[in-house]
Amino acid sequence: MRLRAKLIFLMVTCLFLLAATSDEVVPLLGYSAASSRTQRDWEGKFRMIPTPANLRDYMQRLSAQPHHVGSAYDKDNAEWMLSKFKEWGLDAHIETFDVLFPTPKERIVELVEPSRFQAKLQETALSVDPTSNQQSEQLPTYNAYSIDGDVTAPLVYVNYGIPEDYEKLEQMGISVKGAIAIARYGHSWRGIKPKVAAEHGAVGCLIYSDPRDDGYFEGDVFPQGAWRPADGVQRGSVMDMPIHPGDPLTPDVGATKDAKRLALKDVKTFTRIPVLPISYGDAQNLLKALKGPIGPESWRGSLPFTYHVGPGPAKVHLKVQSNWDIKTLYDVVVKIPGSKYPDEWVVRGNHHDAWVNGAEDPVSGTVSLMEEARALGTLLKQGWKPSRTIIYCVWDGEEPGLLGSTEWAETHADELRQHAAVYINTDANGRGYLSAGGSHTLEKFMNGVARDVEDPEKKISIWKRSQFKQIADATSTEERQEARQRTDLRIHGLGSGSDYTVFLDHLGIASLDVGFGDEDGGGIYHSIYDDFYWYTHFSDTDFSYGRALAQTVGTAVMRMADADLLPYEFTDFADTVHRYLGELQKLLKDKQDQVSERNKEMDEGVFSATADPKKTFVPPQREEVPPHLNFAPLENASEALTRSAERYQKAYEKVAKNGDLAMNSASLQIVNAKLLQSERKLASQDGLPGRPWFKHMIYAPGQYTGYGVKTIPGVREAIEQKKWKEADDQMQRAAAVLLDEAALIDEAAQELERGR
Amino acid sequence: MRLRAKLIFLMVTCLFLLAATSDEVVPLLGYSAASSRTQRDWEGKFRMIPTPANLRDYMQRLSAQPHHVGSAYDKDNAEWMLSKFKEWGLDAHIETFDVLFPTPKERIVELVEPSRFQAKLQETALSVDPTSNQQSEQLPTYNAYSIDGDVTAPLVYVNYGIPEDYEKLEQMGISVKGAIAIARYGHSWRGIKPKVAAEHGAVGCLIYSDPRDDGYFEGDVFPQGAWRPADGVQRGSVMDMPIHPGDPLTPDVGATKDAKRLALKDVKTFTRIPVLPISYGDAQNLLKALKGPIGPESWRGSLPFTYHVGPGPAKVHLKVQSNWDIKTLYDVVVKIPGSKYPDEWVVRGNHHDAWVNGAEDPVSGTVSLMEEARALGTLLKQGWKPSRTIIYCVWDGEEPGLLGSTEWAETHADELRQHAAVYINTDANGRGYLSAGGSHTLEKFMNGVARDVEDPEKKISIWKRSQFKQIADATSTEERQEARQRTDLRIHGLGSGSDYTVFLDHLGIASLDVGFGDEDGGGIYHSIYDDFYWYTHFSDTDFSYGRALAQTVGTAVMRMADADLLPYEFTDFADTVHRYLGELQKLLKDKQDQVSERNKEMDEGVFSATADPKKTFVPPQREEVPPHLNFAPLENASEALTRSAERYQKAYEKVAKNGDLAMNSASLQIVNAKLLQSERKLASQDGLPGRPWFKHMIYAPGQYTGYGVKTIPGVREAIEQKKWKEADDQMQRAAAVLLDEAALIDEAAQELERGR
Repeated sequence: MRLRAKLIFLMVTCLFLLAATSDEVVPLLGYSAASSRTQRDWEGKFRMIPTPANLRDYMQRLSAQPHHVGSAYDKDNAEWMLSKFKEWGLDAHIETFDVLFPTPKERIVELVEPSRFQAKLQETALSVDPTSNQQSEQLPTYNAYSIDGDVTAPLVYVNYGIPEDYEKLEQMGISVKGAIAIARYGHSWRGIKPKVAAEHGAVGCLIYSDPRDDGYFEGDVFPQGAWRPADGVQRGSVMDMPIHPGDPLTPDVGATKDAKRLALKDVKTFTRIPVLPISYGDAQNLLKALKGPIGPESWRGSLPFTYHVGPGPAKVHLKVQSNWDIKTLYDVVVKIPGSKYPDEWVVRGNHHDAWVNGAEDPVSGTVSLMEEARALGTLLKQGWKPSRTIIYCVWDGEEPGLLGSTEWAETHADELRQHAAVYINTDANGRGYLSAGGSHTLEKFMNGVARDVEDPEKKISIWKRSQFKQIADATSTEERQEARQRTDLRIHGLGSGSDYTVFLDHLGIASLDVGFGDEDGGGIYHSIYDDFYWYTHFSDTDFSYGRALAQTVGTAVMRMADADLLPYEFTDFADTVHRYLGELQKLLKDKQDQVSERNKEMDEGVFSATADPKKTFVPPQREEVPPHLNFAPLENASEALTRSAERYQKAYEKVAKNGDLAMNSASLQIVNAKLLQSERKLASQDGLPGRPWFKHMIYAPGQYTGYGVKTIPGVREAIEQKKWKEADDQMQRAAAVLLDEAALIDEAAQELERGR
Repeated sequence: MRLRAKLIFLMVTCLFLLAATSDEVVPLLGYSAASSRTQRDWEGKFRMIPTPANLRDYMQRLSAQPHHVGSAYDKDNAEWMLSKFKEWGLDAHIETFDVLFPTPKERIVELVEPSRFQAKLQETALSVDPTSNQQSEQLPTYNAYSIDGDVTAPLVYVNYGIPEDYEKLEQMGISVKGAIAIARYGHSWRGIKPKVAAEHGAVGCLIYSDPRDDGYFEGDVFPQGAWRPADGVQRGSVMDMPIHPGDPLTPDVGATKDAKRLALKDVKTFTRIPVLPISYGDAQNLLKALKGPIGPESWRGSLPFTYHVGPGPAKVHLKVQSNWDIKTLYDVVVKIPGSKYPDEWVVRGNHHDAWVNGAEDPVSGTVSLMEEARALGTLLKQGWKPSRTIIYCVWDGEEPGLLGSTEWAETHADELRQHAAVYINTDANGRGYLSAGGSHTLEKFMNGVARDVEDPEKKISIWKRSQFKQIADATSTEERQEARQRTDLRIHGLGSGSDYTVFLDHLGIASLDVGFGDEDGGGIYHSIYDDFYWYTHFSDTDFSYGRALAQTVGTAVMRMADADLLPYEFTDFADTVHRYLGELQKLLKDKQDQVSERNKEMDEGVFSATADPKKTFVPPQREEVPPHLNFAPLENASEALTRSAERYQKAYEKVAKNGDLAMNSASLQIVNAKLLQSERKLASQDGLPGRPWFKHMIYAPGQYTGYGVKTIPGVREAIEQKKWKEADDQMQRAAAVLLDEAALIDEAAQELERGR
């Protein structure tokens, strides 16, 4: 009996091994067996080319000087990259745009009561760090697109300054009306903090970096370690990007020389109150001077005192004045024409501008893009001819508000809508695990790529390592089971925070955002310490993950460019939409339960009985229980999508199995042309409520998260904001785009079924 | 139709109100209708008597000087209380015991590498706080029953120093062998920390108070606020109390003059390594000097630097030497003889010794006990005659190791086993909610008492306020539903940490531990700042909860003393045992699942694939999946208990309904005599594995928690410690006591059924 068991085990093992072997000859998604073999050869050659030493050299050069928008070195970098691309035999040019980019003229933060303290607002040069002393070239610490202002007011600590923090303040009976709100960085995109503070009546806003979040609590501070030192400040944009990113003066159109520009007073994306970022070295002197109630436990950072909320007695004087100048952006654009489908474009980008030296952000990503381009140049010389047109872009002006990508894409909007098959983005890169987000029509494609790239530390595929990580991190049996059993690892939906935004959200182009990280951390983000010294001591120090990034994205670009049939896949997408629908239903249900329970507790007297009479507590208001909403349109659309996806899947499998992917190119071209428009179907011309620039109906950055994605955002945000009528309307609109998508997929399936 | 609905609503409301009204005339548990009415009258009178002003006066007197064991003021307090009891017309006396009580002779903590720092080991007197400068009377900061020692070794930070922390250390590849472990206070009784450190090979142990746990993270520090200042130190005992509490020289017997005493070398409850407590003012200089890996996130406190684990380069010199003297304890004992059942005793206690001035710990409880005694004295003068004998005890020597209560109870063990119906304990008291723990045979009784005491802040019953608190704090629908619907609020099982231990765990006497708190916090525990100034500024400043405590416990004492039938109740107990059984099954199941999953992940390669190559990670060892255990004996016993409890309940209800509780006292006496022994049945002569002093089979302090209870401890700790054979054996033993209990309950029920 035991022998028998062993034999069975052996047989099963053999079967597994056989399956694994045969897996290798399964053609790539969208490829015939023959073209798949050829493609694998070229990709294999490609992945041999990127070299860590080059990445290091490029980084040293690009981060040698501060290179923010409008700086001499920003332009210099662009021209140097242009020359490199040309040197590698590529057709490259620079496109310029003229954008509004405010820089600091005057900045004051001072405590005026109960004692006086003048904030330094200056990062310290460190002798071990050779670029940290370039003070005349460094942008001072500030938040771009803060309005000018000069206010003196009591201070209130608002934790991360997101909506739920204000709910807590309300419970404590504290208002920021007429006050200066001091928020800590984290838990939202920074622009949300002054926006929410202003909505609650604050007259100014300070944002500081608490050592709990990226300072000594996390690890030793720079230069002993990777984390933010006492003087370190996070610069950054605070424009209201959830309304629209890009040049504030030219929404919807490219900021070309003669574009029609808004007057400053008509701009919609400035803050409503003045804002400045400060270090914890400065902030602690203000926070220490607060009295009033103590913040809830989760509000307390790692500074060595009790976190009081205020208001006052600390009173602060905040003054911000900027030079409101127009600066020129330098986007570097490389074009490799397609040999077979020149009108289908694969667009790939990473920005090059930084807040200061920006070795990590963005140069660690920029250098991989460059090395990909060099490698593609090499392959071209060896005879590789991509079927589709490949466009490599190095964006300027990402930091102030995704300016370079947005203005370029708005300028070329019509062509892009017609031609773009995909946009693949990278930004800062680090050591560790693959992180991939994007359109779920590309989930299977991305999984395929990840299976073919080797992790530099573990010598297994980056896909396998990610899967193991998901198993290790799973917090429930269900999660663990999914990580083990689902064919594809899930990619996350994209919010905002990098240059994919205009492509995905405004133009409806299927997009991916890819990077490595999670094994190192750091607190130099947007400070003078994000530089070559820091990166080569505390991040991907040997550039092996820079190489892996070039291999991953280059493989994706080539595989997308050469596929016989565009490798979108819809069952993963339909599965994802189905999940989102479930989340929305749960969101509503949870809100209903929560309000019912709270009302019940009010009736019982729970709140008054448990309020500590020595503390101010404002009990919640009675609230209507949220109504039931009509989910049927979305449910029907989700099911239609699933059916269409399955039909397409079957049709594709049949074609692939019959080896018919080499079918006559006329027929293929019809399918490809349809597929190319598939993501476009998910965008609606009228866009999202209150922010028509955002047209994608499935993904958007949250109005109150900024970076964080809201999926099926029209519906989700309406429910979150208790706009029931709007939720019902948006349900219809989201259903409509999904039905359109299903119809397009059906058409593509039909075309495939008809075949040859 | 709407009118009809309203009428129905009105009728239902009337029914409810009727039920509520009729509730008032439901007799007290264990009382006939007539005796219940009389009793309610006396109890009502009682609750009018306790006066906040008296509590304040007593506290000022008792905490005016340091009054630790062996101090002049300790004895003085005892004699003063004796005189007060006599003044109130009560029969009181002092019983003395002679116990080993070490006090500091020499204490050194110094950093010797990489730089030098000498710890101050001294709390600072504060000018606003009049008793803080009594330095000649204050005990220096130390941990009693640490062995003498003089060691110099590298330092390792071990977080809270509990077993799971050492598992983490192992994963990080760090050993404390030959090192001095520095642990922070919290998450276990302090004596566990040196015990576990020694088990892992440490040669010394420091325990410090992190500001995260009771310092500035929680609130403003003394004297601005209630929390621990930089110099504040938590003194305390580190004897191995989970082995046995009480005088180390006289386990099992009273430390009377001529008791047989162990030689020091034979004592089992000293630490195995030298230990000292330190302030964070001192500790930060040692912790800052550590290098090596950074502690996991949950290990990091609120000191303003990165928490490294070591070992070293910090090297510490630790020297501890004590005067190993015998000191005299002064227990004050008051006896009110019973008029009807003089041989059934209701015992009530609170300690009077403190580490220093001890206004909160224990005086805030002591003063309530005194005021109860005064009130009972008053009632006696008014003609109240308790049926049972009431014994009030004010214990000495609780702080070093529950000495006064343990030695007294060991001395009087035979009488207590024969006569004691209940022991009711209090200790430090504060503002807020009722906290009640104890034997679940008293759960319904305690709930009844709580329904009759008014919350001073909200003017609803303390029971109702607790219920609301449970509803407010519930984290699941199930919890909320139980809080709303279960007739009785659950009381918690008792571990250790106060004077009930010998009564419940050693003698098997049904016990309760009662107090108020949760609305204030503080960080003066066992420091010189726990004094009258602190208490009257930051705790129950108007002594209204001191009054509520006297009302609650006095009511419980009287109600227990006067009941016709001892008011134990067994369905709540059976329900609780059933829950514990479920917890044990889940504990085993979770362990099985956890080990299976971990083994599976080892097979898959998850650990090696996700280990960061830049960090030391020692992967877990392969482990046998825990076997299935035979729960049947416990399951059967639990069911038998439930059946008996229901039978008794029915019999009692019938008797109560027929108004037969005034049945002939001979029959009642038989039932009472049985009931009196009911908790004794849960104790087993042989006690728990490895610690025979602990005889209760349902509750015990955990061997590795100290304060925290382990329920069905023989089984639970065997499972936790992976002793499968022992778990099976203990299952049988626990089942046996439960079956004995069930049999006793059946007998009592039978006697009731037979009745008149």
